[in-house]
Amino acid sequence: MAVNLSIFNDFLPIDGLKIGIASAGIKKPGRKDVVVFELADQATTAGVFTLNAFCAAPVTISKQHLAKGQPKYLIVNTGNANAGTGPQGHTNAIDVCQALATATGATLEQVLPFSTGVIGEPLPVEKIKTAIPAAIDNLSADNWYAASEGIMTTDTQPKGYSTEFEFEGKKIRISGISKGAGMIKPNMATMLGYIATDAPIAADVLQKICSEAAEKSFNRITIDGDTSTNDSCMLMATGKADVPLIDKAEGALYELVKAELDKAFTILAHAIVRDGEGATKFVTIDVSECENEQEALRIAYTVAHSPLVKTALFASDANWGRILAAVGRSGVKDMDLSKIFIYLDDVCIVEQGGRAASYTEQAGAAVMKQAELSIRIKMGRGTAQETVWTTDLSHDYVTINADYRS
Amino acid sequence: MAVNLSIFNDFLPIDGLKIGIASAGIKKPGRKDVVVFELADQATTAGVFTLNAFCAAPVTISKQHLAKGQPKYLIVNTGNANAGTGPQGHTNAIDVCQALATATGATLEQVLPFSTGVIGEPLPVEKIKTAIPAAIDNLSADNWYAASEGIMTTDTQPKGYSTEFEFEGKKIRISGISKGAGMIKPNMATMLGYIATDAPIAADVLQKICSEAAEKSFNRITIDGDTSTNDSCMLMATGKADVPLIDKAEGALYELVKAELDKAFTILAHAIVRDGEGATKFVTIDVSECENEQEALRIAYTVAHSPLVKTALFASDANWGRILAAVGRSGVKDMDLSKIFIYLDDVCIVEQGGRAASYTEQAGAAVMKQAELSIRIKMGRGTAQETVWTTDLSHDYVTINADYRS
Repeated sequence: MAVNLSIFNDFLPIDGLKIGIASAGIKKPGRKDVVVFELADQATTAGVFTLNAFCAAPVTISKQHLAKGQPKYLIVNTGNANAGTGPQGHTNAIDVCQALATATGATLEQVLPFSTGVIGEPLPVEKIKTAIPAAIDNLSADNWYAASEGIMTTDTQPKGYSTEFEFEGKKIRISGISKGAGMIKPNMATMLGYIATDAPIAADVLQKICSEAAEKSFNRITIDGDTSTNDSCMLMATGKADVPLIDKAEGALYELVKAELDKAFTILAHAIVRDGEGATKFVTIDVSECENEQEALRIAYTVAHSPLVKTALFASDANWGRILAAVGRSGVKDMDLSKIFIYLDDVCIVEQGGRAASYTEQAGAAVMKQAELSIRIKMGRGTAQETVWTTDLSHDYVTINADYRS
Repeated sequence: MAVNLSIFNDFLPIDGLKIGIASAGIKKPGRKDVVVFELADQATTAGVFTLNAFCAAPVTISKQHLAKGQPKYLIVNTGNANAGTGPQGHTNAIDVCQALATATGATLEQVLPFSTGVIGEPLPVEKIKTAIPAAIDNLSADNWYAASEGIMTTDTQPKGYSTEFEFEGKKIRISGISKGAGMIKPNMATMLGYIATDAPIAADVLQKICSEAAEKSFNRITIDGDTSTNDSCMLMATGKADVPLIDKAEGALYELVKAELDKAFTILAHAIVRDGEGATKFVTIDVSECENEQEALRIAYTVAHSPLVKTALFASDANWGRILAAVGRSGVKDMDLSKIFIYLDDVCIVEQGGRAASYTEQAGAAVMKQAELSIRIKMGRGTAQETVWTTDLSHDYVTINADYRS
């Protein structure tokens, strides 16, 4: 059951972007498992991809095609990740791209492929190719909600976001969807995000916005520390809004659009954590007063990945010793225990490295019982700060991941 | 329930070492929770300690005292880790050492303190001091089994090992005990190991043997990736055996004793994994054909700590995709997927980075159903090799760690 995540069904269409959904029957007959995005001619697209060294064939191809020019089509399938599939996996992904290109008059390199699902099984190319005409027939600006459902794997609910705002009286829109459940589940894998705006944004500026927004959102969430072979986050700008072209990373319009996109990325990333496998808590881990950001992240992730911290969160146990011990083994050099303060929301649990004098079990337990809470760690050694978001480790996590193929 | 771990009750006494057990009632009335080791005058002692930056007060003091000379006494308490206790924790640990020193005529610096148990609670100094006379009265060479029980916290059973072997017709003995359950559980924490031999070994050689043996045993096991603030492993040599002094790291006697001690360390370390929290499997992770040992360890630990690999092990699911994805995110640079082979015991599951042609689910499932199995990963990029040992991630792990304080 997702943590404080309501189903979003108020999508605003984005002029210049159509979405088509179809069923290829990859895992289940009748399941909508193919999603096609069609972009207007002047649209620009940016992307960030998994850092896993063994990225899947579609990731490699998407990166290559994106480097060569602006895409016209994105095609996503669920039910099969086309990962760990060797040279045949590459050929299969190209086949799918070529089929969509042929059917639409695009070039092969104008198509980006995305796959999520079981690893190591051959991609059912013929099934997907057979579904492409139906997806093209289905193309519409109003298919965002269907797409949010279409990219789901073990997510318990679809994830979406839309907003409309003005610049000098002219309207700009953003809509986006994401999926994820775990950062990786190699049977039905992968974090995916597709965000679009009708603002006109030059490709290099769009890539900068996408990279920076993903860095502080999708790259700051963790369920279990694993990293999918297929993670991808795409940002599309159709250019249909009646505002000037954003071709420099500066100015009021740039700042406005960037801030709104940052927000969209963050909400869609948080939605993935809220729907994390077995999640009963949404936890913000804020590490500040560090010498640099790398150090803050290292501490934050060590705490976020500690099975002992995560099981304590599941148990609503304000176990400050587990948090402090995780900080201690983070590998940051020359830490001074006597300068460390740790808070659960606003309740100080550790001061100068020991249990806070003012701390009571009652106050700690009150914070820990909440579905959303923050662990704030002040290191007393600098000014750098970082935030990551995570979940607890519950029986349901074990059940979901242990029973997956059984 | 421990994995293939029988209770050891055939301890051989070590001449020159006496052990006394007493009850201080730290957590439960009547529980034997204080263990004292008394060493003969000529004995030497070596130790390795936690790398957690926030090591507990007794660890700091043991390191300081050991650096100043050879100890006469070691005193261990369970029920309280004296960690996260600030300057008062240091004073309390010194108080305990001084009480034992006064009662025995030793100097303060001839006493090493060890604590395991709840973090952040003040050490009940008076209770421990009151129990010291009983522990001294109880000193005997035959108390190894009682000591193996006395240092337990949430271990489900005591862990021990003894052996006797000969060098040129003269007998040498080794006995040892360990405890651990998880690498850390900040309420009832810590890996501890106490190994003794009657061989005469110079302090510097003993430290070298201890460091090297611990590096390949206690430092190669992991339950959940956490590292206690209190981990300690002590090696004592009483010098009572009728063999020449080992004062150089060379020669037949040195090699023989080192090999036997390596074996003792390994068995006692494995016993901790076999009794890991919620463990249903004992898993050897062997990574070979690496450029260097650091790289092999990095891959081995990434696989060993992956919650997805661990839940697959719990489910007896031969999920090669999860193993391969963990290798892929290990952070080792320039990995060549096409050179990677992965085996479950002798069953090849991945060849050249994809599912092995010969692989059948049946063959993989047969290996995974065993209580003991190995994951062997060949990277095809060098000659370095490392091994770590770990367990699966079960519902019982979550239950044990989530319910601890409730």
